[in-house]
Amino acid sequence: MPRYTIGVDFGSLSGRAVLVNASDGREIASAQLNYPHGVMDRSLPSGIPLPPDWALQHPQDYLDVLDATLPELARHVDPADIVGIGLDCTSSTVLPVDAQGTPLCLTDRFRDTPHAWVMMWKHHAAQEQARRMTRIAEERREPWLPLYGGKVNAEWYFPKLLQVLEEAPEVYAAMAHYVEMTDWLVWRLTGRQTRSAGCLGYKAFHAGQFPDNAFFRALNPAFGNVVEEKVSGPILPLGECAGTLTEEAARRYGLRPGIAVATGNIDAHVCVPAAGIDGPGKLLAIIGTSTCHILMGKRTLPVPGMSGVVRDGVLPGWAGYEAGQSCVGDSFHWFERTCVPAAYEQEAASRGLSVQALLTEKAARLRPGESGLLALDWWNGNRSVLADADLTGLLLGMTLQTTPEEIYRALLESTAYGARVILENYRDSGVPVEAFHASGGIPQKNALAMQIYADVLQMPVRISSAAQGPALGSAIFAAVAAGFYPTAAEAARAMGGKDETVCYPQPENAAIYDRLYQEFKALHDLFGRGGSDVMKRLKALRNMSGKAENDHE
Amino acid sequence: MPRYTIGVDFGSLSGRAVLVNASDGREIASAQLNYPHGVMDRSLPSGIPLPPDWALQHPQDYLDVLDATLPELARHVDPADIVGIGLDCTSSTVLPVDAQGTPLCLTDRFRDTPHAWVMMWKHHAAQEQARRMTRIAEERREPWLPLYGGKVNAEWYFPKLLQVLEEAPEVYAAMAHYVEMTDWLVWRLTGRQTRSAGCLGYKAFHAGQFPDNAFFRALNPAFGNVVEEKVSGPILPLGECAGTLTEEAARRYGLRPGIAVATGNIDAHVCVPAAGIDGPGKLLAIIGTSTCHILMGKRTLPVPGMSGVVRDGVLPGWAGYEAGQSCVGDSFHWFERTCVPAAYEQEAASRGLSVQALLTEKAARLRPGESGLLALDWWNGNRSVLADADLTGLLLGMTLQTTPEEIYRALLESTAYGARVILENYRDSGVPVEAFHASGGIPQKNALAMQIYADVLQMPVRISSAAQGPALGSAIFAAVAAGFYPTAAEAARAMGGKDETVCYPQPENAAIYDRLYQEFKALHDLFGRGGSDVMKRLKALRNMSGKAENDHE
Repeated sequence: MPRYTIGVDFGSLSGRAVLVNASDGREIASAQLNYPHGVMDRSLPSGIPLPPDWALQHPQDYLDVLDATLPELARHVDPADIVGIGLDCTSSTVLPVDAQGTPLCLTDRFRDTPHAWVMMWKHHAAQEQARRMTRIAEERREPWLPLYGGKVNAEWYFPKLLQVLEEAPEVYAAMAHYVEMTDWLVWRLTGRQTRSAGCLGYKAFHAGQFPDNAFFRALNPAFGNVVEEKVSGPILPLGECAGTLTEEAARRYGLRPGIAVATGNIDAHVCVPAAGIDGPGKLLAIIGTSTCHILMGKRTLPVPGMSGVVRDGVLPGWAGYEAGQSCVGDSFHWFERTCVPAAYEQEAASRGLSVQALLTEKAARLRPGESGLLALDWWNGNRSVLADADLTGLLLGMTLQTTPEEIYRALLESTAYGARVILENYRDSGVPVEAFHASGGIPQKNALAMQIYADVLQMPVRISSAAQGPALGSAIFAAVAAGFYPTAAEAARAMGGKDETVCYPQPENAAIYDRLYQEFKALHDLFGRGGSDVMKRLKALRNMSGKAENDHE
Repeated sequence: MPRYTIGVDFGSLSGRAVLVNASDGREIASAQLNYPHGVMDRSLPSGIPLPPDWALQHPQDYLDVLDATLPELARHVDPADIVGIGLDCTSSTVLPVDAQGTPLCLTDRFRDTPHAWVMMWKHHAAQEQARRMTRIAEERREPWLPLYGGKVNAEWYFPKLLQVLEEAPEVYAAMAHYVEMTDWLVWRLTGRQTRSAGCLGYKAFHAGQFPDNAFFRALNPAFGNVVEEKVSGPILPLGECAGTLTEEAARRYGLRPGIAVATGNIDAHVCVPAAGIDGPGKLLAIIGTSTCHILMGKRTLPVPGMSGVVRDGVLPGWAGYEAGQSCVGDSFHWFERTCVPAAYEQEAASRGLSVQALLTEKAARLRPGESGLLALDWWNGNRSVLADADLTGLLLGMTLQTTPEEIYRALLESTAYGARVILENYRDSGVPVEAFHASGGIPQKNALAMQIYADVLQMPVRISSAAQGPALGSAIFAAVAAGFYPTAAEAARAMGGKDETVCYPQPENAAIYDRLYQEFKALHDLFGRGGSDVMKRLKALRNMSGKAENDHE
């Protein structure tokens, strides 16, 4: 008798839910809802304006996704056969709640206070707090800092919470818990307040334990007991059953009470089992506007320049390493909107292609090395392995014959070289990389890009073509939480990695790219490791000259 | 009683003649004719096709210009008051003639032989000969080589003549003289065969004397007596009266016989007196698709990386230095056609502006340093001071917020930095630069570019707004040849530099540009002086990849 699980993936603009067969991961049905309030970066629903760099969300939008999708999915099979549900969200996307889990922003007292609302991952207004955390952690030689690339990111949990304390102390005082959205949603489904070890591990410095209270006190005396006061609750490993569906929730969503609800997780990380990855050595690159590289290793090793390493942080049993490229699809899109001549836009329009599809078609006719161009993929800084947001883009080799498609291809290539730097950095640090998997929008849309990645990396690129990768990943964790599989690895093998296509390297291209990569690496080290600090000096001059700084860190 | 002179400037596509008052240089009338045959780079008039890199012209086109313009100008005043005529041409633009001065290409025997026609300055098919000349001159440590930047340019006189010898020996054997077009035209007007010291100095290694016959013999045994056999005739200094107008020419053009015809000259060089420059220390930049920098000094000094230094080569009495930037307006035009989005083209069209005028308007709103961008102006290699055609363009500092006008401004700025490198190189070599004059298309059209030059150079930019700069310059030399002035310097003071506008540096901008220039100079030396040879390796890979492509075809 078939059994089913549901995964729900909460992205930045919408929520997508999928019902899958727990035996093989086959998708039975899916549903989706765009958040009614979207991203609130200009004003609160009441019209109160927000400062620059703010990015908030409405918690009701998330509940609306559950309302819209779960009953719809439940209609497709006998609800008695649905045995579990799993959730993932962007992270750190956080909100203050009272002891019952009610968002403070939904109370009369705080509905006009921006700090009481959901701060999205890309809320960048806690830069000052993040910089202070880095500085003080460095001064105190905090042992966890090297595990997070040596730098606190303003997108993480504690910078946001410190911003609330310092700018809206009344919100800080009133909250009983500061919760990740994924944990809040699990709480709503189960009636039990828990916390995901994944979110805390990657976003809140939780490596077996939190930083010492003395660290938090050094940031701000009122922040000294933050862990006890605001971050309480049992911390659950991934794949664990966080609780069972309440009677009320079951009634509301058309499901059976008592089914397993898995520990919440991070959207990028659940893509790992969805790609069929069951253990160490298989790197997954989720390639979209930016790229997240996730890799498991047997040991927890210091790897310079990664975003974080968390024991059990991706699949239980292994060290989960995360690295990133700040700017991938974003730079292609920048090029498309900034540098493509009218004749190309007209040709694309007349042939019913997107401009990027046309550029890709033209770029695919070029041979590696033919353009003489080389780019450094730093339009949005460099996350891994340099962890330096002040680096900027570089393009070299232009002649009067240089064409738009040559530049476009150089940008594609630069992101492949950037990925190779990350892979080689893992290998050099003793973390094996034996396979390269790719998921996300670009692998599914751009075959040329994937061929370039295969040629540059000199590895087959295994492209996951699951339409709803993260939601499938959450459904896999749901199957583990329901006891359908003994381990997440086993569930990943059974349910993930379907419909994989493989792009193999072409040896003659790989040989040329090997030489181009050496040139990339030399420029990378020259401009990224202090040989020339020209990019930083130019950025300093730019800031002096008054240009608004809104680059991501 | 007023006296007048005529100057005729032969450009690449047309000839322009001007009648001016010899006392003050005021223009009385002008006339112009586009060459009926233009540039012949695909076939001869008979339809015989030309190989790549060839660029020929028809000698009759030049005579047509005289027919069309001189009688027209002569109508404006009493011809008895026109006392002299001067000519300038592009150079080295050369043709083989018989002893009477008849172009071989106009004879039945040679009309279908490409080598018998006028080879334009931009005829680039003598590359192999130029490379061989450089190599052999280096091996022989020829003393003149350092005076020409250490490298023989395929555009010059002897590479073209050697190409004729080696590819069409029958043309070589049949010619009595290989003549610069400007000398041929003077011959037509005066009946006397002479040679311009300016052309021979800059284009034919004539520094008081030609290279030794042994050098020419080393190139090709049949080339050993080239100077005696093909380059004979009196060599006349600039401003000299090369002869007087013949009866026949006077009748044909409506002028008086016996008036002075000045020694022929090079189009860029005659701009110097037209700009009012009368002696050392005043650099003239003729800024168009590329830039030619001309400067006089009291002494002939070795200056690394210039194109040439010739005693008396610009104005008699001084050493004339020439340097160049290979790519100025060309890179702005490349950007306009390659990298400007449709929205900009539409805005420009709807407002009746050129795209570059719109980009300039938007770029003018930016402050120095605001974009964070920096470019190396090497899209077409670097002529001075690196003399390296294998260098390529670089753009650095891009972010996801970078706009087209920011890149456009960075390109404008890069050419100003390139000019400053040339100025500083002169100063460092002991050749003073006390003033900066600008003429050509860009100074007259782009006020923003000139403000940037003033700010970067920290000098006022004196913009010559004479509509017909070179033709005026030739008219100035005509006045000297006619004895109206004792020296060209005096004539330049009296007749040149009218309608000059001056753009002054803005101190606050200059301070920022001073810092940006230091960054430019560091990158210039890093990539141009061997710190990183990445551009050359990429170009080599590009050529490899191009060969591979040809092999496949």
